[in-house]
Amino acid sequence: MPHLLLIQCPDERGLIYKITAVLYGQGLNILRNDEFVEPEGNVFFMRTEFAGHFDAGALRAALAAALPAAAGIRLADGGPKNIVLLATKEHHCLSELLVRHAFSELNANILAVVSNHAVLGALTRKFDVPFHCLPHAGRSRAAHEAEVLAVLARHRPDFVVLAKYMRILSPGFVAPYTNRLVNIHHSFLPAFVGASPYAQAHARGVKIIGATAHFVNEQLDEGPIIAQRVIPTDHTRSAHEMAQAGRDVEKIVLARALQLVFDERVFVHRNKTIIFD
Amino acid sequence: MPHLLLIQCPDERGLIYKITAVLYGQGLNILRNDEFVEPEGNVFFMRTEFAGHFDAGALRAALAAALPAAAGIRLADGGPKNIVLLATKEHHCLSELLVRHAFSELNANILAVVSNHAVLGALTRKFDVPFHCLPHAGRSRAAHEAEVLAVLARHRPDFVVLAKYMRILSPGFVAPYTNRLVNIHHSFLPAFVGASPYAQAHARGVKIIGATAHFVNEQLDEGPIIAQRVIPTDHTRSAHEMAQAGRDVEKIVLARALQLVFDERVFVHRNKTIIFD
Amino acid sequence: MPHLLLIQCPDERGLIYKITAVLYGQGLNILRNDEFVEPEGNVFFMRTEFAGHFDAGALRAALAAALPAAAGIRLADGGPKNIVLLATKEHHCLSELLVRHAFSELNANILAVVSNHAVLGALTRKFDVPFHCLPHAGRSRAAHEAEVLAVLARHRPDFVVLAKYMRILSPGFVAPYTNRLVNIHHSFLPAFVGASPYAQAHARGVKIIGATAHFVNEQLDEGPIIAQRVIPTDHTRSAHEMAQAGRDVEKIVLARALQLVFDERVFVHRNKTIIFD
Amino acid sequence: MPHLLLIQCPDERGLIYKITAVLYGQGLNILRNDEFVEPEGNVFFMRTEFAGHFDAGALRAALAAALPAAAGIRLADGGPKNIVLLATKEHHCLSELLVRHAFSELNANILAVVSNHAVLGALTRKFDVPFHCLPHAGRSRAAHEAEVLAVLARHRPDFVVLAKYMRILSPGFVAPYTNRLVNIHHSFLPAFVGASPYAQAHARGVKIIGATAHFVNEQLDEGPIIAQRVIPTDHTRSAHEMAQAGRDVEKIVLARALQLVFDERVFVHRNKTIIFD
Repeated sequence: MPHLLLIQCPDERGLIYKITAVLYGQGLNILRNDEFVEPEGNVFFMRTEFAGHFDAGALRAALAAALPAAAGIRLADGGPKNIVLLATKEHHCLSELLVRHAFSELNANILAVVSNHAVLGALTRKFDVPFHCLPHAGRSRAAHEAEVLAVLARHRPDFVVLAKYMRILSPGFVAPYTNRLVNIHHSFLPAFVGASPYAQAHARGVKIIGATAHFVNEQLDEGPIIAQRVIPTDHTRSAHEMAQAGRDVEKIVLARALQLVFDERVFVHRNKTIIFD
Repeated sequence: MPHLLLIQCPDERGLIYKITAVLYGQGLNILRNDEFVEPEGNVFFMRTEFAGHFDAGALRAALAAALPAAAGIRLADGGPKNIVLLATKEHHCLSELLVRHAFSELNANILAVVSNHAVLGALTRKFDVPFHCLPHAGRSRAAHEAEVLAVLARHRPDFVVLAKYMRILSPGFVAPYTNRLVNIHHSFLPAFVGASPYAQAHARGVKIIGATAHFVNEQLDEGPIIAQRVIPTDHTRSAHEMAQAGRDVEKIVLARALQLVFDERVFVHRNKTIIFD
Repeated sequence: MPHLLLIQCPDERGLIYKITAVLYGQGLNILRNDEFVEPEGNVFFMRTEFAGHFDAGALRAALAAALPAAAGIRLADGGPKNIVLLATKEHHCLSELLVRHAFSELNANILAVVSNHAVLGALTRKFDVPFHCLPHAGRSRAAHEAEVLAVLARHRPDFVVLAKYMRILSPGFVAPYTNRLVNIHHSFLPAFVGASPYAQAHARGVKIIGATAHFVNEQLDEGPIIAQRVIPTDHTRSAHEMAQAGRDVEKIVLARALQLVFDERVFVHRNKTIIFD
Repeated sequence: MPHLLLIQCPDERGLIYKITAVLYGQGLNILRNDEFVEPEGNVFFMRTEFAGHFDAGALRAALAAALPAAAGIRLADGGPKNIVLLATKEHHCLSELLVRHAFSELNANILAVVSNHAVLGALTRKFDVPFHCLPHAGRSRAAHEAEVLAVLARHRPDFVVLAKYMRILSPGFVAPYTNRLVNIHHSFLPAFVGASPYAQAHARGVKIIGATAHFVNEQLDEGPIIAQRVIPTDHTRSAHEMAQAGRDVEKIVLARALQLVFDERVFVHRNKTIIFD
């Protein structure tokens, strides 16, 4: 597995030269390099896969010396992330991730599954993953979120994945997980934000339906989009059949988005993603 | 070219039997038959391609006798429709339709092109189609629409096609052309209604862009959808580049929708289409 | 669940009328009807979903009396099929089907999984499905196939599904399961028949890869195609990465094809499928 | 319009550093940079968009000094290419390119259209492009190709585009235009090489059809693939209808491939393309 260097900084002339000079100077070999300059904010992004032996502190110091003071410099190894999944009753996204996890295809360790219902416990336990059932019934939103946050705090995940978690999250829940909380929304955002997107899609008579994996921010369904996919539909499909067909898209697009995130291919800038795929 | 029978009526038991009994009784041969029952309103739709000699009055009378009183019964021949195109400055949809028309691929006669700018006149005249330049500058919306409607009234088209006509139409303009006015909207509706959808899509950071061909009703961009298509995009595309890439989708999806409409494959029911493709 | 009537017969004038007359005469209500006439062989296909009480013998007799002598007439109920899965080492198609089965989404009972390797046993047993490990090593093809056929004979499945079973089957194995043996081939057939399609695709430098679900006949990878899907690829993907990405398509297209088959939506005619979706 | 630097050379450590050092040293500003290392042959490819004033000879010399002796170094400006189109009777690809050319969307000057039939002459002349009708009837292949080559020699195009030119070209024709001769093949290669791909696709019963834009080499339909696209089809489509639907894909994928080629985004290596899109 190659090492990763991830840089985000104000653009200026010579950045690629300055960064690669540091790597070259330390005897490191670039295997793959991707750059992008976001033209509106004039921000430079670079993701470098490199090989060779190095001292992290020295490399970081050399890069910091070569780059603007505001530069974000991150060294990573692309290894498995620690994650917790939140789900409700629908199994398809959870199943997809549990199976990939079981066969070491997820680039993540699933530390636990948290659900506000019990129904997915049996599935989760088949795959030897801890299952926390935290019912919301009879609790205030704040109290329920506090319970979920307590479980998360115990597991200390790198990322939290909403695998069809059908509860709206308050800003206070979201804030500590900025750019670390991934959701799958069952529509082609920004079409059909909010509840029952397939019913909305059916009522509107669309000819294509889709799914969107995105980071969650304080506005429902408005965080940075990571991946989207669509499938055709037509007048013969009921809202229920659209939902069934949509599940195949949802689980694949969520798994795909997580692969991009866990492989350190996704930068977030303002409300958008820069993805070096 | 086969004959077409198009029926829309309240559903009841035996409709297919009753209709095909009439056709069989008159010695007519069904080449292709499509039916659909819309479950919410319990409405039956049928499109039949058939061959054989018949007396239209007698056939219609026999069908009317066999079907509920509220039945809509239409005989058609699927031959070319008479159409007028409205455009503004962008050429791509207009070019697409003019070229198809020139090679008899449109199943329509383009009677005229109307534009609120002069720029597309040269293109239109290359293909020997009359071009009416009706500038909106210096005119009220009502006065301008009256001029366009006067040209339409002179040509008496079966359908009016908004081939990137960038003016909002008032309900009074739309009403006489209910289900006969087709627009191409440069987004995947209902995402990004209204102006500058590519700029909206760019700002939202979507990973897929699209286009929607639809009938126009009194609410902007809210009429029955006929066809939609999408293409992937990413962070490297500016709004301008999205618009460029989107043009290829727009013209193809508009041409495709018109083919469906002109071939009598599209029923409109409430705010949706039933399409027998 | 509606009843199903499935008819395949030489085309002649009045077939829809004659069939629907029988249904109407017996007081049955058609919920959905699909027909197709294959123009080269002049063969008529019809799939009817209907509701009501009926005597199967009487209905069949009335239909037989109304239709050409050569007509194939089948009554079905669309209920779950009994199936056996064959797999080798790759889990993704097997996982997909086991999970759908566990949540009653497959419209099939998985009677057993047969594999020529042991590796998928643990997964299969998680879902309480019998697992038969029948290694091919040290056995002739004939001897190994006889063992597999013996297991199949014991389970008497309606359909056998090759869920990434990486052994070539002899005509003698295939023959008793004509139109009842479904395979997933990891390419967009007829491109890249045979072994290692992703390596072939990589070597050819294609920009799209795909998967094909098809009935197996005596010629490898040449049976009737049920469903195909594709995804884009590019020069940055190794053959290994293409294979990884392709798995998502393979499992979804296989599940989709099985849904069509188990729901009695697929007719086979010569080497093609007619699918009423 | 930015300047372009295109480099292809054996990979070694420090290439990006060495190249960007030269650009930085000459005061040039990199706007966009793409690199790829082809792992099998260990070949490095880089496409750089840069801005600033420079002396081409000096820049080339500095780069040559910094890079391996075998390095291919090319400076380009991304400006319009000079092209000649070859067509036969089908208009759709030719129309597409003529219209784009007329509206300055092709990044190319169409110097002439050559056809072995007269039928597309009227269309071509509408767009004020010279049309050479060179019938093949009554001529040997060699004699006919010599005539076409003579016209090409007169126009000295950068690229020759086969816009549905339905004649097989001999190796002697192709050789002088290596990597400068682009064809559109009406199938998803390598499926259905050779003649009548839609008839082949129909006979095989595929569920998806496509088109492939590729460079032509000495083996028919086996040159490096530039772009491919597909559309779904089903049992209801005749080979003729598949061909009709396929035309929309063909013309768009050809136009897209040409955009990539003319914008200097395509490297050819062995029998594949590396595309920096």
